[in-house]
Amino acid sequence: MTHPRNLSLAEMDRQSVFHPVSSIDDVMRNGPSVYTSAAGVMLRNAAGRDLIDMGAGLWCVNAGYGRAELADASAKAMRELSYQHLFGGASCEATILLADRLLGLFRERAGAPQMARVFFGTSGSDANDTAFKLVRYYNNLRGLPKKKKVISRIGAYHGLTYAATSLTGIEAYHKAFDLPIADVVHTSCPHHYTFSLPGESEQAFSDRMVADLETLIAREGAETIAAFIAEPVMGTGGVFLPPADYFARVQQVLDANDILFIADEIITGFGRTGQWFGTGTYNLRPDIVSLAKGLTSAYFPMSANMVSDRIWSVLENASPEVGAFMHGFTYSGHPVGSAVALANIDLIEREGMVENAAALAPRFVTALRDRLGDNPFIGDIRSVGLMAGVEFVADRAKRTAFPAGTGPHRIVARHAIEAGVLTRALPFIPVNSFSPPLSITAGEIDEAMDRYAAAVTSAMPELIALLKS
Amino acid sequence: MTHPRNLSLAEMDRQSVFHPVSSIDDVMRNGPSVYTSAAGVMLRNAAGRDLIDMGAGLWCVNAGYGRAELADASAKAMRELSYQHLFGGASCEATILLADRLLGLFRERAGAPQMARVFFGTSGSDANDTAFKLVRYYNNLRGLPKKKKVISRIGAYHGLTYAATSLTGIEAYHKAFDLPIADVVHTSCPHHYTFSLPGESEQAFSDRMVADLETLIAREGAETIAAFIAEPVMGTGGVFLPPADYFARVQQVLDANDILFIADEIITGFGRTGQWFGTGTYNLRPDIVSLAKGLTSAYFPMSANMVSDRIWSVLENASPEVGAFMHGFTYSGHPVGSAVALANIDLIEREGMVENAAALAPRFVTALRDRLGDNPFIGDIRSVGLMAGVEFVADRAKRTAFPAGTGPHRIVARHAIEAGVLTRALPFIPVNSFSPPLSITAGEIDEAMDRYAAAVTSAMPELIALLKS
Repeated sequence: MTHPRNLSLAEMDRQSVFHPVSSIDDVMRNGPSVYTSAAGVMLRNAAGRDLIDMGAGLWCVNAGYGRAELADASAKAMRELSYQHLFGGASCEATILLADRLLGLFRERAGAPQMARVFFGTSGSDANDTAFKLVRYYNNLRGLPKKKKVISRIGAYHGLTYAATSLTGIEAYHKAFDLPIADVVHTSCPHHYTFSLPGESEQAFSDRMVADLETLIAREGAETIAAFIAEPVMGTGGVFLPPADYFARVQQVLDANDILFIADEIITGFGRTGQWFGTGTYNLRPDIVSLAKGLTSAYFPMSANMVSDRIWSVLENASPEVGAFMHGFTYSGHPVGSAVALANIDLIEREGMVENAAALAPRFVTALRDRLGDNPFIGDIRSVGLMAGVEFVADRAKRTAFPAGTGPHRIVARHAIEAGVLTRALPFIPVNSFSPPLSITAGEIDEAMDRYAAAVTSAMPELIALLKS
Repeated sequence: MTHPRNLSLAEMDRQSVFHPVSSIDDVMRNGPSVYTSAAGVMLRNAAGRDLIDMGAGLWCVNAGYGRAELADASAKAMRELSYQHLFGGASCEATILLADRLLGLFRERAGAPQMARVFFGTSGSDANDTAFKLVRYYNNLRGLPKKKKVISRIGAYHGLTYAATSLTGIEAYHKAFDLPIADVVHTSCPHHYTFSLPGESEQAFSDRMVADLETLIAREGAETIAAFIAEPVMGTGGVFLPPADYFARVQQVLDANDILFIADEIITGFGRTGQWFGTGTYNLRPDIVSLAKGLTSAYFPMSANMVSDRIWSVLENASPEVGAFMHGFTYSGHPVGSAVALANIDLIEREGMVENAAALAPRFVTALRDRLGDNPFIGDIRSVGLMAGVEFVADRAKRTAFPAGTGPHRIVARHAIEAGVLTRALPFIPVNSFSPPLSITAGEIDEAMDRYAAAVTSAMPELIALLKS
């Protein structure tokens, strides 16, 4: 391909692209990492090297790359109805079928009470932004104008619009933008491995996490708190699994204080945990569910909020008096996105990808443990379904961290690329995360783990050097 | 097509879809308006009726519906690289080419200074949310932590995330969500027809608008104000054209007070005004440009922010010290969206759609004036390029409004559907807006205007009745 102005792609990138969540200095010095094609679990870079993408992009390519079924669904939908909005009661077939399908999937697969309606957007960030606006709307309608704060958790990741960034509980995303806003408060991070006290059992830790939540609610006043938002498994924070009976007891606290539960299933939805939804995995009863990523396997930007009867009935009853619900987006319920999402759900069902995730989950974590369980710098290996985290520590016995500012997981992730496998280096805690396409095979998992283990080995001298500096 | 659960599509919609910017009560009572297919400027509803879509969806289908070139581009891109993020310096060819193309288009077609870089998102709302976050980041880097407020305008529409809703200057979007936030202030709406004083000339009105802005800046303190955001032509507010020398003088005020100018070109970009960008039409010198809608002609959710050298140089210089820019979205710079955008810009260029918009603009407004200029309830007909507003008044001489709560423009829009043409009824002021695909022909304009004029005629008894109640 001839490029304009006789620039290489890399040089053109340096001169034109403002990269999200990137170091400008790094791009200017070293140029971008250009990827050219992808199929299944393999991503090819500009040097022609095939990498096993153990991140599935950003936790999103659940059905794998390059599926012709989804390309065909997109093209067919664009030819037929390339755009339709849903404002003013307008609608279209694919979006109606998708809304019905999502409610049915959730009813049948999550074991949760029937949700009432589905609102659409284009990104996980906007879904959580919508949830933030929606709980305000709900309590205004209920005549509770003071009940507006949302409790999130330290280490949470809920996206990066202005409001969603506030919900996110990772300081690296906050400071430079003066966030979080005042109506968001964060409670303790329920990650036992890192945040438990010496000798504290998982149950005692869980008790303390719930007590912290109760203390926060008491301090702020339940009458000021509208909702609690949580990922069933905290993803970007560090792949944090909820400790023993944490969610059961959190939900009791929420119920006792008339606080809505927003389940952020943007990562966990569509099979990641080995079930269709994290709601099913952890027996949740959410009032709002945020979906994105796996909804379309990232072929088309789409998000959704499912809302409960409890919320919907308030909105519906108030509607004749208050008039239109004045929130939404140009691309809410895009017909092409809906067609792609339907085809994607068909693929996941037809090929049994959720069942595959559940079946391969033990092999996946065993493969990690067999290869890395004895590494002196790997303190914890944890997983659920096809979602795993490898946490680095300077001293396994004491669980001490590497020196501040060093990034052992970033060093390993760099070596992993050299070894032919992509993993993510997370921003909150030194963890490499794994979340491969759910279409992955046992052989691909083994190969990926071999490559990752080789990367850890080759990174060892640099990791050791971190402790000497 | 067989539908699950033996429900009609309309019934399934009522039971599953949470419509954006809609009356729940209306959908529950009357069901949705289902559309099934579209081609060119024509949208077909479930009854098989073809409507001329004079709104181009929500101001977004610039290249017209159902273009095979864009469907093909999408399918090809999905087969090749169905997803790639841009985090951590990752990149891909289509997105690099698009960023370069946008900077080149803007340089060559807008007559504005070269912009430095392009940041990507998925919606106009997130683009303005990004702009809101970005100006805070910029002034934090500059050591000006108090300089954070953004001035918007009454009647402005900048989207509906929590921050974008705040930038929007229409109360109907604010109240139920406790918005705007404190760091957004709104100055006067520069729409001469409605807001001028008796006998006030356009120039005197423009002077007053600029004086209002200066007063607001003085009251808040320039040291607290980071940016001013404006649509070159206010769209959803009511198709408000800037009065004489307004922007020239506003920009002088901004320069004098070290205030950035965010141009929201989400509607005006990609040919709407008869030029490629409203920046060119009104000789603007923006620091940030928000783009969406016409960028992909709505085939794929995509938005972009172009940022100026003034901003970029601060970010680039600070980067080695401050580390990564911690903002972005999973779908920032989606490779399929980039491929669709490139194909869309190719189409617009190859078929001369911007030139077509410029050439047909006089015919368009003349067609409106010829048919409706004498209607006693139509006070103003205004347009630029292929963007027009028809404003309803109870009394033309006095410019008095219809009684509060009545919606003459909503009545006419309903009759227009009956007559076979779609127009929008706006939320701020009783205006029907027109923004057809830029691929429209002279014959289609004439036919659309005939249908709209027939709708106004058939609505007259209801409009007259509004004044008697």
